[in-house]
Amino acid sequence: MERMECGFCGITPPLNIHDPFCPRCGEPMLVHDPGRRRRIRSSAETTAEKYAEFLPLRKPAARLSLGEGETPLLPLDRLRREFALPAVFAKNEMQNPTGSFKDRGSAVAVSKAVELGVHRVGTISTGNMAGSTAAYAAKAGLRALVLVKEDTSREKIAAAAVYGAAVVRVRGDYDGLFHRSFVLGREHGIYFMNSVDPFRIEGYKVTGYEIFEQLGAKAFAGRPPRVRIYVPVSAAGHLIGLMRAFADLKKAGRVRDMPVFVGVQASGCAPVVRAFAQGADVVKRFPRPVTVAHAISNPAPPGGRLLLAWLRRHGGTMLGVSDGDILRAQHLLASMEGLFCDPAAATALAALLKIRKRTGLDPASQNVLVLTGSGLKTIPDLDPARLDIRDAGLESLDRAPFLS
Amino acid sequence: MERMECGFCGITPPLNIHDPFCPRCGEPMLVHDPGRRRRIRSSAETTAEKYAEFLPLRKPAARLSLGEGETPLLPLDRLRREFALPAVFAKNEMQNPTGSFKDRGSAVAVSKAVELGVHRVGTISTGNMAGSTAAYAAKAGLRALVLVKEDTSREKIAAAAVYGAAVVRVRGDYDGLFHRSFVLGREHGIYFMNSVDPFRIEGYKVTGYEIFEQLGAKAFAGRPPRVRIYVPVSAAGHLIGLMRAFADLKKAGRVRDMPVFVGVQASGCAPVVRAFAQGADVVKRFPRPVTVAHAISNPAPPGGRLLLAWLRRHGGTMLGVSDGDILRAQHLLASMEGLFCDPAAATALAALLKIRKRTGLDPASQNVLVLTGSGLKTIPDLDPARLDIRDAGLESLDRAPFLS
Repeated sequence: MERMECGFCGITPPLNIHDPFCPRCGEPMLVHDPGRRRRIRSSAETTAEKYAEFLPLRKPAARLSLGEGETPLLPLDRLRREFALPAVFAKNEMQNPTGSFKDRGSAVAVSKAVELGVHRVGTISTGNMAGSTAAYAAKAGLRALVLVKEDTSREKIAAAAVYGAAVVRVRGDYDGLFHRSFVLGREHGIYFMNSVDPFRIEGYKVTGYEIFEQLGAKAFAGRPPRVRIYVPVSAAGHLIGLMRAFADLKKAGRVRDMPVFVGVQASGCAPVVRAFAQGADVVKRFPRPVTVAHAISNPAPPGGRLLLAWLRRHGGTMLGVSDGDILRAQHLLASMEGLFCDPAAATALAALLKIRKRTGLDPASQNVLVLTGSGLKTIPDLDPARLDIRDAGLESLDRAPFLS
Repeated sequence: MERMECGFCGITPPLNIHDPFCPRCGEPMLVHDPGRRRRIRSSAETTAEKYAEFLPLRKPAARLSLGEGETPLLPLDRLRREFALPAVFAKNEMQNPTGSFKDRGSAVAVSKAVELGVHRVGTISTGNMAGSTAAYAAKAGLRALVLVKEDTSREKIAAAAVYGAAVVRVRGDYDGLFHRSFVLGREHGIYFMNSVDPFRIEGYKVTGYEIFEQLGAKAFAGRPPRVRIYVPVSAAGHLIGLMRAFADLKKAGRVRDMPVFVGVQASGCAPVVRAFAQGADVVKRFPRPVTVAHAISNPAPPGGRLLLAWLRRHGGTMLGVSDGDILRAQHLLASMEGLFCDPAAATALAALLKIRKRTGLDPASQNVLVLTGSGLKTIPDLDPARLDIRDAGLESLDRAPFLS
């Protein structure tokens, strides 16, 4: 029987796909770390194959793939010059098959569903996770059920339903739905792979391995650590996965210290930022969340308490950024670096620029912004004042002012 | 002085970025093939580096990149089983930085603009090319001017303007604008890199090299050729680039014959299909184009005549597919393979299924569908009857019919 491991209190109960929380402390379960030294297959072609022993699949070769991962790490040279920044890179997770980092988690979780002989999967989402889960379920030939808030936009619903998933707009208290879904799943034989699903989190680790491979081991050799990784935080599963990747690398003797992780939330919905600043051990629900960064507007992150503990243990931090700074960062990334991300992803640059202004940045640091999702799904949120759109007649084109 | 080469009549005048058509026969200019044997750098990491000698940049290392290319070639196993197909793959061009194959062309053309010291670039587009050109111009720090039809959707305009480009909605006869833009460009110092720009076409070659590398040389060794490549055709620059890639490989002694190319158009706008079927030498304007495949709805393809000649010389073909078959193919790719492409890209699968039904497919053939662009920009064109969207109350969820 496959064993799990509580990320918080450490107990190791057997796997229960219908309840991914610790029966003792209620925090998210992780896949059990076998303890034995795991081998990096340096001759493998892709990072996922190279680190296959660090992933929880019995037959890594049978892993479902839509071509997720191996995303580029792009130097942001124009921004670096403009703001006199130290080395800064974008890890472009928008280039995953459905346009967000979620695909890395869906690839592993849906592969696990196939391995376990499950025929139906489900998820709760307001956007990116819906499409991602539905796409991998389609590839696997599994039925998918996606529950969304009743006010979710027609476009986001269509972008999940297109994969053949049943999408249900749920009226009523949305927050209760997260835990309710696991009950429904148990009763009806549906594996609900929600935001902090332990197999999703394992999938997110690969991003960490890729950053390690792309920056090179030398970047991680210094003390204090010079690599700083900026990650938008919603449920917290993504950042937990990235931290776990470097914990793996540390255990394997490949890095001396963890890099410094900077978790970022929008100030309009910043429950983990607030708890971190107050030195609290638990994350309290954030009242009345309002932010343009919809993809990370989660007032009660299920992985928040675990994240707090890990950030303190490993010297990471949390930062909140305003909607104004988020939209400005989104504009800068698109207009100076050709990267059109959603507001949630832009929080990473907003955080970097805020730190630069407040305390300065170590000139020897290497800063990695994890751009979590594409801007194509959030076009209505763009600030029209930043778009240069004009009208002209064909006849009068050569007298038009934009030509000079 | 850099020389060009008419793809049709073969004359080799000097480069003129403001007039990419042959001064003698009016057909598209290509980059001059130096004739000498070019070397494949087999130790290079990426395909573009490996084939750098086949690309028209003086300093390949200085090539602008947003991480375009190296897209996955995905086996479509569920479709293969469902329709008893021979080997079939998707070359997933949706995974390029702005969601379409255009990025490969923009990367090379904008790099060339930088090399030539040009400060302003422009393009005419109804969608994908606008965003792609604007993104690479942003990365290069060049000003970009995008001319669009006045009825272009707000979303598509915003998805280009977000990169800082000036987007101009042009009233009046759109067709005249294509040639007019080169005049404007010459007068105002703007390099208009439109659909059949010779440097764009060189960028598209890399897709061909990647398919060669991904299928392996052995797949191209048989006679008659077993590899069939299905490519949606609009202006015709993309397919011309893919054919040129294999012409390069043939000259370099890497393939014995060209693969069989199947150019695909929507029956509602099929000027090249019609000319090919009629055995005509020229492509006549297609009257009153009407199709859901907007990205390839080009009634007067500037590369059409050249494409006709090349298809005949190399044993390729053209096929038209109906809007009904296109939407069905789009649905099949999403719901069975997890690939959500736009209707234009789905024409590739529609063509494969049409050939299967009509004449059958060689069981030993290897079929590659080039999925040119993402479905995320064309969500309003989805057929609602194919989307399973329901409503439910939270309280009554566990009695809902979709759970059983």
